[in-house]
Amino acid sequence: MTNTLDRASPVPLYFQLKQIIIEKIEHNEWDPGQPIPSEQELQDTYGLSRTTVRQALSELVIEGRLVRQRGRGTFIVQNKLTHTPQKPQGLVRLMIDRGLRPGWRVLSLEWTTPPYEVQHLLQIEPDTQALYIRRLRLASDQPIGYHQVWLPPGIAGQINHDALQEGDSLAYLRHLPAVARGHTIRTIEAIAAEAAEAELLGISEGEPLLLIQRLLCDSDGIPIELMEALYCGNQFKYQIILPNAE
Amino acid sequence: MTNTLDRASPVPLYFQLKQIIIEKIEHNEWDPGQPIPSEQELQDTYGLSRTTVRQALSELVIEGRLVRQRGRGTFIVQNKLTHTPQKPQGLVRLMIDRGLRPGWRVLSLEWTTPPYEVQHLLQIEPDTQALYIRRLRLASDQPIGYHQVWLPPGIAGQINHDALQEGDSLAYLRHLPAVARGHTIRTIEAIAAEAAEAELLGISEGEPLLLIQRLLCDSDGIPIELMEALYCGNQFKYQIILPNAE
Repeated sequence: MTNTLDRASPVPLYFQLKQIIIEKIEHNEWDPGQPIPSEQELQDTYGLSRTTVRQALSELVIEGRLVRQRGRGTFIVQNKLTHTPQKPQGLVRLMIDRGLRPGWRVLSLEWTTPPYEVQHLLQIEPDTQALYIRRLRLASDQPIGYHQVWLPPGIAGQINHDALQEGDSLAYLRHLPAVARGHTIRTIEAIAAEAAEAELLGISEGEPLLLIQRLLCDSDGIPIELMEALYCGNQFKYQIILPNAE
Repeated sequence: MTNTLDRASPVPLYFQLKQIIIEKIEHNEWDPGQPIPSEQELQDTYGLSRTTVRQALSELVIEGRLVRQRGRGTFIVQNKLTHTPQKPQGLVRLMIDRGLRPGWRVLSLEWTTPPYEVQHLLQIEPDTQALYIRRLRLASDQPIGYHQVWLPPGIAGQINHDALQEGDSLAYLRHLPAVARGHTIRTIEAIAAEAAEAELLGISEGEPLLLIQRLLCDSDGIPIELMEALYCGNQFKYQIILPNAE
């Protein structure tokens, strides 16, 4: 593939420009998350009309290769972090592969009377306290997720406190034999960020968040942990692979 | 449980009012999605101070039983439709259980050159057309989801056209033996509704949507269907149950 236009070709010029841009993205000449040259620069570089440049860029936006940000320009789309919960360490490895440093910041750890829904899911009595832990998930010190967990009293005494700052979201419980058996129920919702959540994640109020609730149960179906994690919608997606027969 | 306050009881009055409201919700005297009486009405009915009524309502909001809508009042929280894709017909049955009539409205069905990402996922050549179907998923004639699917040429000729208007989202393909084997890759994202999507779903631009992409493959890993479905974040959640060992 060349980096120049072939004006003798029957292939329309806007289409040739599209191919040049796609090449630059695929060969990492232009990086995800970075702006592309302005329309004027593209017109000058390739000797094209404004209409032709615009048609190429518009199609690349529709095709999901580029994204326009009002008042800021046109950017190469940054692929979202895709977490596959069936792969332990999946998100940790993904961050390392992207040159990001995975980490956690523990915000608080306290005994609390959980909200009604949490009591109900953890099958604990209304007057029983649970250990409540709040953590930010970090990618090179930037928060990308906000995790809250509630642990019933029998489990709370057995957690690995050091592992709250490292590894994946289950690292602090993985030494418990009960965690390796049993099953996990996950529910996934799209919600709008409230003010406090937006502040924790460094985004604007109202932005879409993925809310992932995880109820981890032992082989008798007794709840071990309830997690509620919020991830920025524009940075993160969730992936599940299942056999069709199921 | 009584429907009146016991002023001789050591249980605080705000807590007694909370219990009365919870009873009314759980016994379906007050229905999900409906407003509760105003603060003034609750004060008058139970002979309580404004502070006491407010404390009860605030805690019920925090506990996720009630939701305040600015300028409209306080409403009983409507549980989201929880779809478990591992259960075929799951969402259809759930709607019927709630007294909703499940259905579909086909918006368009045409051959098209799919966007780059779709070509890539379906493993088809850039100049190959795909059958592109757009449908609204209805609950008693109200749209709750917007489905787009792209089908490669080999599959497009085999679909059950009648079943596009009934059953679950796979009803139109389920007669194909390849669908029963193989595997499905689902990715789940939270995005903000764009204007056109908001209009189709009868919501406001910017509201959170759950975007579910489903790539259905046969037992050789050959793609059969790519689906992209959008569901209103405040009506729908997704559930996945997996063994911990996985």
